[in-house]
Amino acid sequence: MPLGERAGDKSESRYCGVETQFNDDMPHVLAFNLSHGSFDFVVAPLMDPAYRPSLMQKESGVSGVLPFAGSDLVLSPSQWSSHVVGKISPWIDLDSEDEILRVDSEITLKQEIAWASHLSLQACLLPAPKGNSCANYARCVNQTLQGLNSMQLWLRIPLVKTDNDTMDVNSSNLDDSWEIWNSFRLLCEHHSQLSVALDVLNSLPSANSLGRWFGESVRAAIISTDCFLTNARGYPCLSKRHQKLVSGFFNHSIQIVLSGEPVHSLPRINSDLAANNNDNNVDGVQKHPLRPYLDYVGYLYQRMDPLPEQERFELGYRDFLQSPLQPLMDNLEAQTYETFEKDTMKYIQYQRAICKALQDRVPDDKASSVTTVLMVVGAGRGPLVRASLQAAEETGRKLKVYAVEKNPNAVVTLHSLVKLEGWENIVSIISSDMRYWDAPEKADILVSELLGSFGDNELSPECLDGAQRLLKDDGISIPSSYTSFIQPVTASKLYNDVKSHNDVAHFETAYVVKLHNIARLAPPQPVFTFFHPNRSTDKSNNRYTKLQFGVSSDTGSAMIHGFAGYFDAVLYKEVHLGIEPSTSTPNMFSWFPIFFPLRTPISLHPGSSLEVHFWRCCRPSKVWYEWSVTSPSSSPIHNTNGRSYWVGL
Amino acid sequence: MPLGERAGDKSESRYCGVETQFNDDMPHVLAFNLSHGSFDFVVAPLMDPAYRPSLMQKESGVSGVLPFAGSDLVLSPSQWSSHVVGKISPWIDLDSEDEILRVDSEITLKQEIAWASHLSLQACLLPAPKGNSCANYARCVNQTLQGLNSMQLWLRIPLVKTDNDTMDVNSSNLDDSWEIWNSFRLLCEHHSQLSVALDVLNSLPSANSLGRWFGESVRAAIISTDCFLTNARGYPCLSKRHQKLVSGFFNHSIQIVLSGEPVHSLPRINSDLAANNNDNNVDGVQKHPLRPYLDYVGYLYQRMDPLPEQERFELGYRDFLQSPLQPLMDNLEAQTYETFEKDTMKYIQYQRAICKALQDRVPDDKASSVTTVLMVVGAGRGPLVRASLQAAEETGRKLKVYAVEKNPNAVVTLHSLVKLEGWENIVSIISSDMRYWDAPEKADILVSELLGSFGDNELSPECLDGAQRLLKDDGISIPSSYTSFIQPVTASKLYNDVKSHNDVAHFETAYVVKLHNIARLAPPQPVFTFFHPNRSTDKSNNRYTKLQFGVSSDTGSAMIHGFAGYFDAVLYKEVHLGIEPSTSTPNMFSWFPIFFPLRTPISLHPGSSLEVHFWRCCRPSKVWYEWSVTSPSSSPIHNTNGRSYWVGL
Repeated sequence: MPLGERAGDKSESRYCGVETQFNDDMPHVLAFNLSHGSFDFVVAPLMDPAYRPSLMQKESGVSGVLPFAGSDLVLSPSQWSSHVVGKISPWIDLDSEDEILRVDSEITLKQEIAWASHLSLQACLLPAPKGNSCANYARCVNQTLQGLNSMQLWLRIPLVKTDNDTMDVNSSNLDDSWEIWNSFRLLCEHHSQLSVALDVLNSLPSANSLGRWFGESVRAAIISTDCFLTNARGYPCLSKRHQKLVSGFFNHSIQIVLSGEPVHSLPRINSDLAANNNDNNVDGVQKHPLRPYLDYVGYLYQRMDPLPEQERFELGYRDFLQSPLQPLMDNLEAQTYETFEKDTMKYIQYQRAICKALQDRVPDDKASSVTTVLMVVGAGRGPLVRASLQAAEETGRKLKVYAVEKNPNAVVTLHSLVKLEGWENIVSIISSDMRYWDAPEKADILVSELLGSFGDNELSPECLDGAQRLLKDDGISIPSSYTSFIQPVTASKLYNDVKSHNDVAHFETAYVVKLHNIARLAPPQPVFTFFHPNRSTDKSNNRYTKLQFGVSSDTGSAMIHGFAGYFDAVLYKEVHLGIEPSTSTPNMFSWFPIFFPLRTPISLHPGSSLEVHFWRCCRPSKVWYEWSVTSPSSSPIHNTNGRSYWVGL
Repeated sequence: MPLGERAGDKSESRYCGVETQFNDDMPHVLAFNLSHGSFDFVVAPLMDPAYRPSLMQKESGVSGVLPFAGSDLVLSPSQWSSHVVGKISPWIDLDSEDEILRVDSEITLKQEIAWASHLSLQACLLPAPKGNSCANYARCVNQTLQGLNSMQLWLRIPLVKTDNDTMDVNSSNLDDSWEIWNSFRLLCEHHSQLSVALDVLNSLPSANSLGRWFGESVRAAIISTDCFLTNARGYPCLSKRHQKLVSGFFNHSIQIVLSGEPVHSLPRINSDLAANNNDNNVDGVQKHPLRPYLDYVGYLYQRMDPLPEQERFELGYRDFLQSPLQPLMDNLEAQTYETFEKDTMKYIQYQRAICKALQDRVPDDKASSVTTVLMVVGAGRGPLVRASLQAAEETGRKLKVYAVEKNPNAVVTLHSLVKLEGWENIVSIISSDMRYWDAPEKADILVSELLGSFGDNELSPECLDGAQRLLKDDGISIPSSYTSFIQPVTASKLYNDVKSHNDVAHFETAYVVKLHNIARLAPPQPVFTFFHPNRSTDKSNNRYTKLQFGVSSDTGSAMIHGFAGYFDAVLYKEVHLGIEPSTSTPNMFSWFPIFFPLRTPISLHPGSSLEVHFWRCCRPSKVWYEWSVTSPSSSPIHNTNGRSYWVGL
């Protein structure tokens, strides 16, 4: 039974498994571990561990029946598929120097996977590569993955990284088990059915190096009983660092599998046992020896804070790639306005900024005599008009508002809003593109919200350049500036989703995405900044920035699948708005981050730095980004001439 | 006029150019350098070097005419395209810290290339990147390359490599100009219209590092007059190393361009001048100041050995990708037999091997009493039958020959050959696949030639395993073994040809190719060996080999586009046959090397080693190779399950 219920969380990590020994009585294995042990599934060997194809041939010729753990009929199809993960024989070693062992291993691996596939198991656990080399193992698994049914293959990887700070590129893969995983999955071309089962040991590597795994495809974490400490009452518990890691697993849909012999001798009598005393006696079955460990894992699960409502709402968007809006070229739909208008925090920030601007513009003693002309350019259905009027009321300033909107459908709503609120004397509605409107007077304050996840990516610079002639020479633009940011990330799920399209164009497109299963490898750095009003003589909005990222040396090597992008906008003076993680505006949900993929993921070794180039390119009809990496090695330039992704003007 | 005539050589390297200064009188530039100077083309600036777009705008607004060297009408279209290479303004610096310079550079570069393209020039010379960084320059060139007409862009690269043996991966690109080229072309995705013009300086880097360039797309070598020494008579000449390099250029279709001021003051009177005295006086024009340098280059060209006939015949096959034959699955055509039968050297080796085997099999004193049974399996149209009979005659041994051939069309020819030669009493023709023939007796000697460029790639192992039951227990197989070899190569031309298909399948296919424009980066190493007869109990022809290649440290970094493959076969005892370069059989032309591409080329840094894996995989219906690299980084496994390339059984 599941570890617990967590509001809104329907992820796999509610289920906990147990690793078992070979036993050809599968019904007993299930009864003992599931019914009596309360585990949700078993990770059970499928084949007698004594089996070796080379011995088999000598002994019994070709007629021998393979020594599998029971026939397919001993369990129902749904029992096999819901409750059994196949454990591939751990003795196999496809990269051994011993050719007989190598050949035996290949035959056995293929037989067992074929059997597991015949049983429609959801997953098989592949033993960890032995030693430093895994090419032949990967070749064999890769062959098997082609044309496999939907079964997942979990490659067991011990969670090991020696913390030596040497920059020696020839140091052994064994020092950092991530390296062997990386090599294996590169050889298998990031196959989407190949994932990781992490073997958690009692000592843990650095937090930075652990963080890498949350960008990888990890499906299970196998926790050995050796990892557990003993609490004051004699019960198993985990260290603080292990607890934090397990919470991370729960939050990333990673299932826990318990493994090993019990190492705690528990006090005879305890409330838990007393309560269940009857059950145990009735069946005449001993309590499952790993039950105290499972109970502790359940306790950790239940102890987690419930997901906040907004987070629960956004669960379905996690790591889901969306095309960015093109609000200039396309007209937004009512549904979209509806969603964004609910983002109270954003309008509070705008109102704060407008208040300050009004107060700076008109001193208190002139508040009743001077009328400030404010234009909302891109008024949509009116939320910024409302924020402006509320700011005027809050500061006691007199306001005249022009609400300029190019979308004729939104203008309909604007008209009814103004009528409904009785703003007819203050607000004029202009149905026009701000770049072409011939205004009767100039504005003191120009308010706009044309920002995309990457700041300028919805063409705020081009729109505001076009609207700048509406502003007085000493007028104020809100926002007064905005900056985009990027940071390198491991994001194997996103990479695979992009790759599944099987073309270059999708690798040269930026996506809006609620990033979740990613590893952030270095702090974000600013990319492009735009200021408004722009009084400089050079009006070009072309930009070019070169950035250097260093990855913390205790992280180890890491894979860069692309860049997470954010923005921060200065609305007015100290009032800002943004999603750059270190300064992000709390409780704001209008923007998910943006993701720029790399066509070929780049492995970054400890101590080497990542050099990245971003360009913003403009032509009369469109604006686009190009990006490339030049260190540690040069990538192709992505999206040349905006061939795959651009924003229309 | 061309440097000279070399039998069979029609390559571009016959033409020699000269780099000129800006001059808006293009007809004069052509007359002076071509008519009087005997150069074939000029590399001439297209734009006034004083031009800067940022100054232009201030001075004359938008109406200004760009200061190009004359209008398009001053030369005929064929003069422009045949005799002028456009030299892009050398002051441009797209990676400068100075933004005005950067923007000026981008505008100018695009204007000049557009102008050159308007003139249908065949090529433009781009100035060398300044400093270490070239990403913005590459971005701009890459944008220009998309949709460019057929014009080539030659990126000028000084031929510089500091010979420091440090393993410091952070050492400057400036130490090795190949690095900057590599970065530039990776950013431009190996664009086929981007190539190199090497600037040859008076000191040359190591031979190994020079060798890399012959695998790259080098179109021109610019030799400065500073490179020239002075011979005893006061004339310019080149050092031995420079001479060797220039011969290399001639052999790789690289055009020489002379550059700089004359630095030799020549004796007043010499035979050459005397002979041409009249011409010079009649025109009243001074002899071209670089004429002695051109004459010397012409002398080097004319001094080269003429191409051997076979080499001349194969010129058209240089670097041309062919699919390997599948002689087992397909029947060869008459034309193919015709070609291969002309390879005298191959049959001489076979005859030698058969002679030795006959002598070992039958001592001299039994020569007239014992008849040796010899089977030619895969007899084709009979060349090995003939070699066998000649060996019998040469050694005085008595022979009975079975000629087994599966191709019914070749059997027709065999019959008429036997009749024509009167071999009816000695030779029996068997129209059958050797794997299925039910022979009336067993053979003393089994002769076959089923070898492909990679040894076993035409399924010799499978065929001979099938035919082995025809051989007596102590019988002899000719060949008795064969081994495949590979070596890593730079081969940008081949890479681009594979890439042009725009799919993965072509990157997972092996090609037969007359390798020419390649750089061999390390000595070949053996991959798979097969022995015949195969008396071992393990009859599997699956193979797996892991190889480590080290690149000589004075080479510098290099790009690996794939692997050149060869074979060597032991026919009998010390008689061998093969194409592995260090031991290849001279004057044999039946096999070109094989080429295994890499989907993503791999940059190898000095001191790091290359780990490569090759697999030979067999199923009842087909045989295929898989290959991958695991160091310095892991590639995908190529050709999983033979999905892209296989040989049918």
